Amino acid sequence: MTKTPIAITMGDPAGVGPELCLRLLDVPAARRDWTPIVLGDAEVLAAVASYCPSLPRPDYAVITLEEFRATPDKCTGPTVVQIGAALSNVTPGQVSDETGAAAYRYVITAIELAQQRLVAGVTTGPIHKEAIRAAGILHPGHTEILAEATGTPRYCMMLTSDEITCSFVTTHVGYHEVPGLLNVERIREVAELTDAALKKIGRETPRLLVCGLNPHGGEHGLFGNSEEERIIGPAIETLQRQGINAVGPVVPDTAFLPERRATTDAYICMYHDQGHIPLKALAFDEAVNVTLGLPIVRTSVDHGTALDIAWQGQARVSSFLHAIQLAARLASPALTYVPTENRT
Amino acid sequence: MTKTPIAITMGDPAGVGPELCLRLLDVPAARRDWTPIVLGDAEVLAAVASYCPSLPRPDYAVITLEEFRATPDKCTGPTVVQIGAALSNVTPGQVSDETGAAAYRYVITAIELAQQRLVAGVTTGPIHKEAIRAAGILHPGHTEILAEATGTPRYCMMLTSDEITCSFVTTHVGYHEVPGLLNVERIREVAELTDAALKKIGRETPRLLVCGLNPHGGEHGLFGNSEEERIIGPAIETLQRQGINAVGPVVPDTAFLPERRATTDAYICMYHDQGHIPLKALAFDEAVNVTLGLPIVRTSVDHGTALDIAWQGQARVSSFLHAIQLAARLASPALTYVPTENRT
Repeated sequence: MTKTPIAITMGDPAGVGPELCLRLLDVPAARRDWTPIVLGDAEVLAAVASYCPSLPRPDYAVITLEEFRATPDKCTGPTVVQIGAALSNVTPGQVSDETGAAAYRYVITAIELAQQRLVAGVTTGPIHKEAIRAAGILHPGHTEILAEATGTPRYCMMLTSDEITCSFVTTHVGYHEVPGLLNVERIREVAELTDAALKKIGRETPRLLVCGLNPHGGEHGLFGNSEEERIIGPAIETLQRQGINAVGPVVPDTAFLPERRATTDAYICMYHDQGHIPLKALAFDEAVNVTLGLPIVRTSVDHGTALDIAWQGQARVSSFLHAIQLAARLASPALTYVPTENRT
Repeated sequence: MTKTPIAITMGDPAGVGPELCLRLLDVPAARRDWTPIVLGDAEVLAAVASYCPSLPRPDYAVITLEEFRATPDKCTGPTVVQIGAALSNVTPGQVSDETGAAAYRYVITAIELAQQRLVAGVTTGPIHKEAIRAAGILHPGHTEILAEATGTPRYCMMLTSDEITCSFVTTHVGYHEVPGLLNVERIREVAELTDAALKKIGRETPRLLVCGLNPHGGEHGLFGNSEEERIIGPAIETLQRQGINAVGPVVPDTAFLPERRATTDAYICMYHDQGHIPLKALAFDEAVNVTLGLPIVRTSVDHGTALDIAWQGQARVSSFLHAIQLAARLASPALTYVPTENRT
């Protein structure tokens, strides 16, 4: 069986990304249906391994980006692709413009490789917003970098775990901005992208639950500005007419009761914390972040660089592993493998 | 041992309140350190019992309000106090101005009895907002009725369960109104009331976690209007100077992770769904609603009238039972029992 090559970006070198990559490279082949292609820095990986004796010392090939581009199908085992000049002066837990710029390069390279179909999907390690900004990149996060680099106008964030899956109509905006960003078209877009993604991983008719915005769903206009009646309800009606199995608007605080969760494949959440709070309360660090709507498959860990515990071997790899597994699942049905000699 | 007399209001006669009262009256004395004094309608209770054969048929005394006022200490066993004229025409699941007015009378009577210290505390059954409004009462819920009837300016809602406890800076207002309602004084007030309540039930130094408002806590002003820096942070500093163990502002979506819950006695939440969503996801129907700041002890079920299953014997009594138990706990240390003959 051919394994699905997944580009794994190492994330910020000063964070927990490198040690997690060592753990990922160490996952036994028998437990993987994907090949880890780490885009990062081989010297940093070696430094982390020697800094922290409890970390595994996996076998992997180290190659240049040019070598990978030339013969990607030779990479059938764990591989580290050296991106840019080696970093020699990384201090654990101390991000800088240099670590931010390196982390950004890994992501941009991963996007290019995925667009050229040299990898089947991308799973990103944690980057640090301030380091990225110090390096002159003004995007608030991965999602925006990915959307711009791939020229994608319609996209959304989905977080998924065994316990609960949520897609977001709005994400990294102030609390007060949310009502002004809700409209029928955006809610439809998020629901359509979510419906399509769940179908891709095998749900025949995904059951979507669309949350209200106000406490108690506004109680028929008693609280709020009737966002439920004016915007969310009409969006749901349109979705239903399209044949999408969407229900709601559901009163937000009862939406996440166990009996509701049992009959819901994905929640369409109006704002970041509406879905992130129950997701983290229930699924801890198991959730995977997927950007829907991109022309490439992209998943991500659901945690940050955790600078306070970086290079100590304490960071748990489960979210990263789940993220890669989901990327492989999303990528495989769509992956048309093109042999090297036929590539343009 | 003297049992603590708790006034239990029957709630809307057409909802699940009456059948829950039958179950409460049926709790064996050995399992109670409180005496159930149901304020409601004996005919409705009898009607519910005959309508639904699966319900228990407990032994209880039926007395008038005048009888109870005259000799409250004679009520040592389960008692139903008939409030107003008996209702004879209640249709299960159909609320009306008549059922709303009756439910309101039970609450007002309970408040009076508690203020006169004829009962040690009040636990309220579910009322129906539209029925209450049809009866000409414009308050949005119990809390506001209680605050007005007792002339209480400083109060807040706390929801508590074994798993998680949350107090609310704002509650039944539209999503968009929340930022405008946050100020240092209100956050302090809610934290102080919560601290005092937890001390009353035996926590020596309650550990309060104060949530931020914006996603990621605003990331130092990147999202939102710096509510964390301008309002929530300063409120926490003031609380700490007062000797209250308050931490924060904590990023809302990580605040409810299991490791955080393990070291938190109560969350101070900025808005209704910030606390209600994780609370219901984790504690289901076990939570109890307490109004803090009132001169009387008042707890409540955390569910509504559930008209769709009213009078069918399906409603679970656990929230109501927990609510009474908490009322008894909150009331007992404060309860100074005044014998009837000395009452003015």
